[in-house]
Amino acid sequence: MAKMTPRTLSGFMELLPAPQQQMERIMEVLRQTYSLYGFTPLDTPVIESSDVLLAKGGGETEKQIYRFQKGDADLSLRFDLTVPLAKYVALHYNDLSFPFRRYQIGKVYRGERAQRGRFREFYQADIDIIGDGKLDITNEAEIPSIIYKTFSTLGLKRFQIRVNNRKILNGFYACLGLTEKSGDIMRTVDKLDKIGAGKVKVLLMSEEIGLTEEQSDEILKFISITGSNEEVLAALEGYKGRDEMFDTGLAELNTVVKYLAAFGVPAENFAVDLTIARGLDYYTGTVYETTLLDHPEIGSVCSGGRYDNLAEYYTDKQLPGVGISIGLTRLFYVLGEQGMLNPELPTAPADVLILPMTEDLSAAISLATQLRENGIRTQIHAEQKKFKAKMNYANNLAIPYVIFLGEDEINAGVVACKDMVTGEQTKLEAAATIYRIKAGLAEREKGSVILG
Amino acid sequence: MAKMTPRTLSGFMELLPAPQQQMERIMEVLRQTYSLYGFTPLDTPVIESSDVLLAKGGGETEKQIYRFQKGDADLSLRFDLTVPLAKYVALHYNDLSFPFRRYQIGKVYRGERAQRGRFREFYQADIDIIGDGKLDITNEAEIPSIIYKTFSTLGLKRFQIRVNNRKILNGFYACLGLTEKSGDIMRTVDKLDKIGAGKVKVLLMSEEIGLTEEQSDEILKFISITGSNEEVLAALEGYKGRDEMFDTGLAELNTVVKYLAAFGVPAENFAVDLTIARGLDYYTGTVYETTLLDHPEIGSVCSGGRYDNLAEYYTDKQLPGVGISIGLTRLFYVLGEQGMLNPELPTAPADVLILPMTEDLSAAISLATQLRENGIRTQIHAEQKKFKAKMNYANNLAIPYVIFLGEDEINAGVVACKDMVTGEQTKLEAAATIYRIKAGLAEREKGSVILG
Repeated sequence: MAKMTPRTLSGFMELLPAPQQQMERIMEVLRQTYSLYGFTPLDTPVIESSDVLLAKGGGETEKQIYRFQKGDADLSLRFDLTVPLAKYVALHYNDLSFPFRRYQIGKVYRGERAQRGRFREFYQADIDIIGDGKLDITNEAEIPSIIYKTFSTLGLKRFQIRVNNRKILNGFYACLGLTEKSGDIMRTVDKLDKIGAGKVKVLLMSEEIGLTEEQSDEILKFISITGSNEEVLAALEGYKGRDEMFDTGLAELNTVVKYLAAFGVPAENFAVDLTIARGLDYYTGTVYETTLLDHPEIGSVCSGGRYDNLAEYYTDKQLPGVGISIGLTRLFYVLGEQGMLNPELPTAPADVLILPMTEDLSAAISLATQLRENGIRTQIHAEQKKFKAKMNYANNLAIPYVIFLGEDEINAGVVACKDMVTGEQTKLEAAATIYRIKAGLAEREKGSVILG
Repeated sequence: MAKMTPRTLSGFMELLPAPQQQMERIMEVLRQTYSLYGFTPLDTPVIESSDVLLAKGGGETEKQIYRFQKGDADLSLRFDLTVPLAKYVALHYNDLSFPFRRYQIGKVYRGERAQRGRFREFYQADIDIIGDGKLDITNEAEIPSIIYKTFSTLGLKRFQIRVNNRKILNGFYACLGLTEKSGDIMRTVDKLDKIGAGKVKVLLMSEEIGLTEEQSDEILKFISITGSNEEVLAALEGYKGRDEMFDTGLAELNTVVKYLAAFGVPAENFAVDLTIARGLDYYTGTVYETTLLDHPEIGSVCSGGRYDNLAEYYTDKQLPGVGISIGLTRLFYVLGEQGMLNPELPTAPADVLILPMTEDLSAAISLATQLRENGIRTQIHAEQKKFKAKMNYANNLAIPYVIFLGEDEINAGVVACKDMVTGEQTKLEAAATIYRIKAGLAEREKGSVILG
């Protein structure tokens, strides 16, 4: 028979078992952390009707989307988790209680140009808090806590949550009479890190944007306000009283900073940063980016912000919210590239491999059942293979314990158990062996998924 | 602005938060159980190249598949998890260790005619053990143990794992000289439960199948062998020695039954059943179905079997395996319809709702941080709403504990905590409150997801 060459589409991540185990650990940390903050899991369809998914329409989205006909239906694969959330909240509004906190970890699809580290199918891990009509600033203040808890539980230490408030930016530009140009300005200022202040000034004064030198200098002076959170906030006090929106934004930012310590966020993992704007017009209050201090080139690994109107394309209800998103597949790829995934954590499919040394397997099987009842992940290697091949199997998969069970052990009521790392071998009763294995496993599980 | 009416496509399950929590619990049980048996999680793309996915080609599959063009690429959504596994094992053969045990819980897509209880997007939860060249019968004997552990952990009691062996059936039909008609015969015999022995006989003797009365009687006599496992096996002994394949199948079935007790499967949850065949030609050895004794109308909720050649369309390597699949979305739907989902288990997004009674929220936030550090899922209700509205929020979501924190409590170093079920209210230090809440939560978690 002619064979079809097996292949996986480019831009689609398909992991081998060991890295998949690492990915699963990360997902489990996300689920646990999001749950701790009172977010409920949601799962919406991957396929939606195109008219629903594209209600907002336009732009890059439409070009990248996977859209197709099935029978009479015009269907599309979701390209983010925000539009499905908007649809969900509008559709199920009467069945939900607000503020509505949900998390969703799911695959989304964008037919981007294939290139290294870019994915067409990728996981997003989103949380959002949706208010009905109003949403208190405390929710915006809580977000850095969730980001901190997530990344620190994963094992990251050197990361920084950078926070700004769009009302401050919009208010400031209003003072300069530049409200209409604020989008262009923010996009330009966003390049500060990459191209430097000089080039930003040139761009601001270019024909396209058309600021005066004075205006440009004002802006550069403003966004160059840096220092500790207290220093930045103190400097911003100097701009107060000129624009109502600015003042509201500054009050919000003060609240966010005020509650940081109570929310358990260390000062070194947080920075007020006036250059953060997030591109989208969608955001209207606090905005967030999260950078790895040793890998600024990666960009933000967790971003989001406050918005005023989640579901405006589906309902007249005012549904303000605040949310953040982790591009999980890309993050996982980058962590792997940077060697930041902890190789010490177990990735084996099992904790114990039992090698039966008798024809009748009843004793080996009973032992496996006993191990499993004690929460120990167990395989029985019952294939007709040489001893050495079976030990290689355990070694290749990094299974930490191998148990040999022959007539002698069965008659003596013990099991021979080898620690595959230390080489130490014990002959103990099953219960004592289980105790020892569980202690060893707990020790091995102590590390975190991510190094750094 | 004109609004787009939000809607979810028919045939796509989209759950409200409370049932979603139940679904998450079921998935967690599946992940845990599959892991206990040494299966490693895999995650393959939802989209594959159509030529890869349809290498086997033909039949219903091609009609139901979601297939579309994107740029130059002819793409399809996976319609099961078996074909992607075959591709995966063939593609990554050199990086895997065999026997390869994997589980996968993922969405698959079939554009079936929409009808009640039928889904176009649904979760399958599959496990498979793939051998390289050979695979020992012990693996087939282990499968009932995994099915038993899965469903009993979910809380089901009255279910039965029904097992047969295709070699027994094929060998028996070979004895009767009916090898070529065995497919037709098995499909007809499969209807025994529904239409009865008389009508099965009529069909077997119909022009289409064309058996003699003697042959039909022989078949009906054979498949009416019932009784305890020992009785059925004893009756089968009487057919031994006439066909090699039959004898092999009977030896395999004896092995499967022999190890049941060691694998921890109670006799009442297991039955040798000669009417089980599974439609597909694909299966070559032990086959499994699982039925709910009080709901036979649901059909099998977990099925599978032994096959000889997983990846024949992709590789010359002989890759025998054994696997089972749970149609999770349909199972969940049916359990809900039958009222079998335990309403007592917590489905709230949080364990504790904190109602701050002070303007400054620092104390409430610090308490929330402390609760979360103790693994308690916590929300702070900081909205500007009346007390009653906040209590309604807790009630509507069935949040089990509400904590009130006012000046008095803060000054006294205590928190007021209300058990929303008993109405009991305590004023204790935070640590004592946490202890009490954790004990209460452990109690609430004691039930199983499924009733019956």
